[in-house]
Amino acid sequence: MIYPEPLENLINSLEKFPGIGQKNAERLALAILDFKDEEVEKLIKSLGDVKTKIERCQICGHLSVGNICNICSNQSRDHNLICVTEDSKSVFSFEKAGSFNGVYHVLNGLISPKDNIGPENINLDSLFKRVDTLTNPELILALKSTVEGETTTLYIKKRFEKKNVAISRLSYGIPMGAEIDYLDIITLDKALEDRKKIS
Amino acid sequence: MIYPEPLENLINSLEKFPGIGQKNAERLALAILDFKDEEVEKLIKSLGDVKTKIERCQICGHLSVGNICNICSNQSRDHNLICVTEDSKSVFSFEKAGSFNGVYHVLNGLISPKDNIGPENINLDSLFKRVDTLTNPELILALKSTVEGETTTLYIKKRFEKKNVAISRLSYGIPMGAEIDYLDIITLDKALEDRKKIS
Repeated sequence: MIYPEPLENLINSLEKFPGIGQKNAERLALAILDFKDEEVEKLIKSLGDVKTKIERCQICGHLSVGNICNICSNQSRDHNLICVTEDSKSVFSFEKAGSFNGVYHVLNGLISPKDNIGPENINLDSLFKRVDTLTNPELILALKSTVEGETTTLYIKKRFEKKNVAISRLSYGIPMGAEIDYLDIITLDKALEDRKKIS
Repeated sequence: MIYPEPLENLINSLEKFPGIGQKNAERLALAILDFKDEEVEKLIKSLGDVKTKIERCQICGHLSVGNICNICSNQSRDHNLICVTEDSKSVFSFEKAGSFNGVYHVLNGLISPKDNIGPENINLDSLFKRVDTLTNPELILALKSTVEGETTTLYIKKRFEKKNVAISRLSYGIPMGAEIDYLDIITLDKALEDRKKIS
């Protein structure tokens, strides 16, 4: 055995994280030796807490401490305006941006026939039931522009076709500050197609 | 607060690791949710073990469970042949390569006047004492070729000048398999200067 046993075990555990290879795991494991005792204790406590205390919100599917997440239980938000996202990471991004005052619905996946993921395998049913209870619902589909994202967008659009639900998707275009000559041609085509009249 | 509290705490803890930024910490923290319970328990146990069970070997300064490391307590190794390294990571690398049958001395740093690190601040004194007890000592200095590495190499060389200690350093040259036209000029110069006669 090349590493002292506790280090070997820690490296093996760290290698289970996505994107952490052996060299990186070694680097992180050795960093622990320079941590203060209370820092290691904090890390250990928070690891346990994340695993035991975090569940899915019963309304929107977002990560939550308790049955209902902070966002769904916040009465100052617009509960008729629902932003549909693939995962909780997207919710964190919108919340960091800070300008959205509606609520979310986290699908925890996208429809993907090639991976055998159908509409029944993601958190869609609860979205349909939820929207049916609202009087003046509006959906913003914030799904990525891949085959899976487009398929899911189309499926949701079709489901609400004959109902009184306003549905929009995020705009495609040039990221703010991006150099136009570095953009891929599909984005550039989309930006041209969706051009916005300014005078 | 954008994240549920346990997640926020875990992200803050993970950001303390070198090279882990906020985005990466979020990614790693969320990965925990997909870990099996026993995987999280293993991770938590190994974190505690690394912090509490690993110490420095009293002979060589390498990481060890107990006073004396596995390498120093291995009697089948050549205890007169000492490879001097900057840190324990170098020891792990040599041990992975697997061909070295001597022992090590880990300096846990390099002499660096600009950072106020003198010979007395690294694990050098114990090296001198250790070598003095040996009858036929040989040192291999495996330190990097920076100003600090060269300074430390020179200091050790000078210390043993009038004593009967064979000292060598690792060879400089072209890394195996490297493209010559991609090499930096200093390495290329060194490889030319240190060329080896083959017939």
